[in-house]
Amino acid sequence: MSTKREQPPGPGRPRDPDADTAILRSAMEVLVEQGFAGASIERIAKRAGVAKVTVYRRWSSKETLLADAIEAARDAIPAADETETPAEDLPGIIDQLLPQWSEALVRPELRMLTARLLGAGPDHPRLLAAYREHHLEPRRERALATLRRARDAGVLAPDADLDMLIDMLNGAVVQYLLLADDTPDPAAARDYLERLFRQAGLRGPAADTPPSAR
Amino acid sequence: MSTKREQPPGPGRPRDPDADTAILRSAMEVLVEQGFAGASIERIAKRAGVAKVTVYRRWSSKETLLADAIEAARDAIPAADETETPAEDLPGIIDQLLPQWSEALVRPELRMLTARLLGAGPDHPRLLAAYREHHLEPRRERALATLRRARDAGVLAPDADLDMLIDMLNGAVVQYLLLADDTPDPAAARDYLERLFRQAGLRGPAADTPPSAR
Repeated sequence: MSTKREQPPGPGRPRDPDADTAILRSAMEVLVEQGFAGASIERIAKRAGVAKVTVYRRWSSKETLLADAIEAARDAIPAADETETPAEDLPGIIDQLLPQWSEALVRPELRMLTARLLGAGPDHPRLLAAYREHHLEPRRERALATLRRARDAGVLAPDADLDMLIDMLNGAVVQYLLLADDTPDPAAARDYLERLFRQAGLRGPAADTPPSAR
Repeated sequence: MSTKREQPPGPGRPRDPDADTAILRSAMEVLVEQGFAGASIERIAKRAGVAKVTVYRRWSSKETLLADAIEAARDAIPAADETETPAEDLPGIIDQLLPQWSEALVRPELRMLTARLLGAGPDHPRLLAAYREHHLEPRRERALATLRRARDAGVLAPDADLDMLIDMLNGAVVQYLLLADDTPDPAAARDYLERLFRQAGLRGPAADTPPSAR
């Protein structure tokens, strides 16, 4: 194991952001290749070219490191509340983000990470729990806030069950990531997302669109 | 390994249905406990109390055996076309099957099997492909046929995207199986399914129900 970048730990020593990035990327790669059982801190540190202690200084457990690594790999995917378009114009937000969401859906590592994460329950419940608590639940709260504003603006039915809608949207995307054809392309992924948002009623009130054009 | 139940293979020798049942049950148990990597034919045969050759006489590969074992564990869950209620009365079918579906959703082994199966892609793509081809796709065709009849009868909108609707329904159920609270009960599962079917528009035309009652 290379220890070139390692320095003695000490109070007040600033964290090295480059090392953090390298560790997160290495953790993601090792997780994709080896699964949770094989993704040891030792192997991740070696891949990142740092000492184990450098990893432990920042992450207290393998679970939190892997949960953060998965999240870092998702960071390139913008959320609905990260555009300047107001939530009241949900169809506008969707149009704006569709190209990036479509690209994300065909990234092999996202497909692999999703499979690893959702398959982790039986053998690695603490990992799944850490990811759910630190990442999934906060993200759901943000999505709920966006959907509430869209509902209040009349884009969604007044009695829409927003929590369930999020499960249906997330669930369909997971079906696509885990079960779709082995060689999807961004155009096919975009078509899938457009159909999903339409069937979910997120493209605006149905009354605005004549049935023949839907 | 016990070989007490083993007999010499020979042409015309009838298959033993009890052995088949024991093998499928053992395969499911070993898969739940050990995952795909640990679910060897040898271990499954030993658990079932049969010789390996008895397993191979019936299943040519570990992939097909495990796919059949997962499906056997699902067999207790009735499909929408297995009631005597016609597809035109989709809300009636749902009411009829909700108790059994709710019970299924809280069965620990179904939750474990779903996680194992959907997590299998990266390391065991042939298993996932075998399950998709032999079980998921035929079941989807049957569901599509039921939904088409319901749509033609006016239960669903004429322009409903039925294939997408199935992904959204399956996807939400998978979210519930893999990510819900650790100790769900059938009443909570039933409430979840009722909300899902309502938001998906499967409880009949919205115009029939005043918003305040939905």
